[in-house]
Amino acid sequence: MITHTASTLDKPIALDAMGGDAAPSCVLLGADMALKRHPGLKFTLFGHKDKIQPFLNDRPELAAASSVVHTDSFIASDEKPSQAIRQGKDSSMRLAIDSVKDGKCSAVVSAGNTGALMAMSKIVYKTLPGINRPAIAALFPTMKGDCVMLDLGANVECSARDLFQFAVMGDAFAKAVLGKTKPAIALLNIGSEEMKGHEEIKEASMMLKDSGLNIDYKGFVEGHEVPNGEIDVVVADGFTGNIALKTAEGTARLISTYIKDAFKASLLSKLGALLSKGALNIVKDRLDDRKRNGAMFLGLNGITVKSHGSADAYSFCNAITVALELASHNINEKILSELQLYDENHPEDAADPFE
Amino acid sequence: MITHTASTLDKPIALDAMGGDAAPSCVLLGADMALKRHPGLKFTLFGHKDKIQPFLNDRPELAAASSVVHTDSFIASDEKPSQAIRQGKDSSMRLAIDSVKDGKCSAVVSAGNTGALMAMSKIVYKTLPGINRPAIAALFPTMKGDCVMLDLGANVECSARDLFQFAVMGDAFAKAVLGKTKPAIALLNIGSEEMKGHEEIKEASMMLKDSGLNIDYKGFVEGHEVPNGEIDVVVADGFTGNIALKTAEGTARLISTYIKDAFKASLLSKLGALLSKGALNIVKDRLDDRKRNGAMFLGLNGITVKSHGSADAYSFCNAITVALELASHNINEKILSELQLYDENHPEDAADPFE
Repeated sequence: MITHTASTLDKPIALDAMGGDAAPSCVLLGADMALKRHPGLKFTLFGHKDKIQPFLNDRPELAAASSVVHTDSFIASDEKPSQAIRQGKDSSMRLAIDSVKDGKCSAVVSAGNTGALMAMSKIVYKTLPGINRPAIAALFPTMKGDCVMLDLGANVECSARDLFQFAVMGDAFAKAVLGKTKPAIALLNIGSEEMKGHEEIKEASMMLKDSGLNIDYKGFVEGHEVPNGEIDVVVADGFTGNIALKTAEGTARLISTYIKDAFKASLLSKLGALLSKGALNIVKDRLDDRKRNGAMFLGLNGITVKSHGSADAYSFCNAITVALELASHNINEKILSELQLYDENHPEDAADPFE
Repeated sequence: MITHTASTLDKPIALDAMGGDAAPSCVLLGADMALKRHPGLKFTLFGHKDKIQPFLNDRPELAAASSVVHTDSFIASDEKPSQAIRQGKDSSMRLAIDSVKDGKCSAVVSAGNTGALMAMSKIVYKTLPGINRPAIAALFPTMKGDCVMLDLGANVECSARDLFQFAVMGDAFAKAVLGKTKPAIALLNIGSEEMKGHEEIKEASMMLKDSGLNIDYKGFVEGHEVPNGEIDVVVADGFTGNIALKTAEGTARLISTYIKDAFKASLLSKLGALLSKGALNIVKDRLDDRKRNGAMFLGLNGITVKSHGSADAYSFCNAITVALELASHNINEKILSELQLYDENHPEDAADPFE
């Protein structure tokens, strides 16, 4: 679950009002909810003014906290990233990203086309100095609150250095979003012994052990151990992270189908279901993905938070909270200073520009 | 769930009576249960006769169906595979494997040390001609019965040809153990589009599409789609397969902890739990791993079935059923003839012995 601190921001958060299955309503209702949760928040809303204005007319507090940048162009959900980059320069998504790049906004939140959002953010922001590959980070449920998992699919192939950088970025993410003071970090692997796994993982493990950074590296974590909640930052290449995330999603759906089927099986179990409604709602609530909405593309020189395309207002509100926490904690400055400290401690590891 | 056919075998099944946390009791009680399920089954029991005989004295039918090969040596659960190979030549595990190699038994089932069992099986049986890497296959629950997943951890790095061979081996496994006539096969990937995933996966996909074999290759399957049950054989490298298997295990455990907690939360939910006992037991039963016990090390010139170390009698009995089905369906002959057919159709793909 995303922690709700009293974080504040000088600059508004940029919202792509036209992105998402239920845009602009989910965006604007989510913004209204976020404003109640974090009074003082400001928004810049990018999108068609005729579609945005009716919502603002009915919500004077949101209207007072928001300015609107009108555009009638937007990125369709099935548009290819390359096409979005070429033809979407005036789109609500692009203008929102540009506003962060130009220093007018602190972060952007969009429920629109994921590929286009990632590609545009990368082109506009550029990567942070020294970062090879940006990674997608998001929250994952455990028995003791949530953990951060990354990369969830941006990079199929990752070097040891990439995995090391993901760990440092995930550490900063967990501090900002989960409010952990010293998150426990581990590499996702198929065993806990040193000789297990790919070469890249073993080497990344050595780099983390010997980093000289003030981080809490715990070694390897296996897939079945992640839900125990002992680890706050689970690091993997994008292929493995995506498989783990989606397998967990599929398993949760499998079990809820089993439960639904079973409670319909007899009159007695239907009565049991009635009396268990409260208990089953607690379970449903703990598994509710909306509470963990808001994935970040870490490693870029700007903050872009991706909301699920099917987000409702509550879900989008949580993605706004993620953006607020990341921006108010200056996550990118923290990532940069950690990586710089590592490079100072390990001149032999510095990337060779002539290589 | 393992199908229970009227399969029969000429030769006995070799049981490592000393392997597993509760050996020999789980092994012998499991064998007794399997004998009731499959009348006519014969066993050769490898282990200490003083520990085995008391069980046989109390069970005349099992005694009549079994012969005992005495040895007082066995492989400890923490023994290293290399040590087991060097020093375990008279162990119950090794003698059981040797009996399959020598043609005296049809298959071996052991709940003992996994690493030692795999290493010994590989050394004694050797790999099937043309197979590069043996793979671990096991059953995975879905909404429509079980599917087969492989490799679950034997090979961290896999070539396209390895993945292709896993698909052919998984096809034969699903036919034998799940009783499918033409199993639907897919490669586990992070998207369904052709350009997604590692190079090896894309190439293996081309090989499967163009195999000329009588198989039902469906393309890529994502982690969240596996539980839908549309796919009978899910193929992955051993790293990815292990992560998927263990993440699913962990998620199932997480949700059952959530459920237990929730039903204890109030008096009403405790009453609900009481009335829902039947329904919750149905769910528990569908998720019961014991029903899917019995992993096979596919690609070797002999059948070794690995039972969970913590197996009880019911669980071990299911592993025996897996061994029976694999042996009675002549799984290795079927794998060989498919691979041979592929090589005949694709002379350009043949392994170059001088490479």
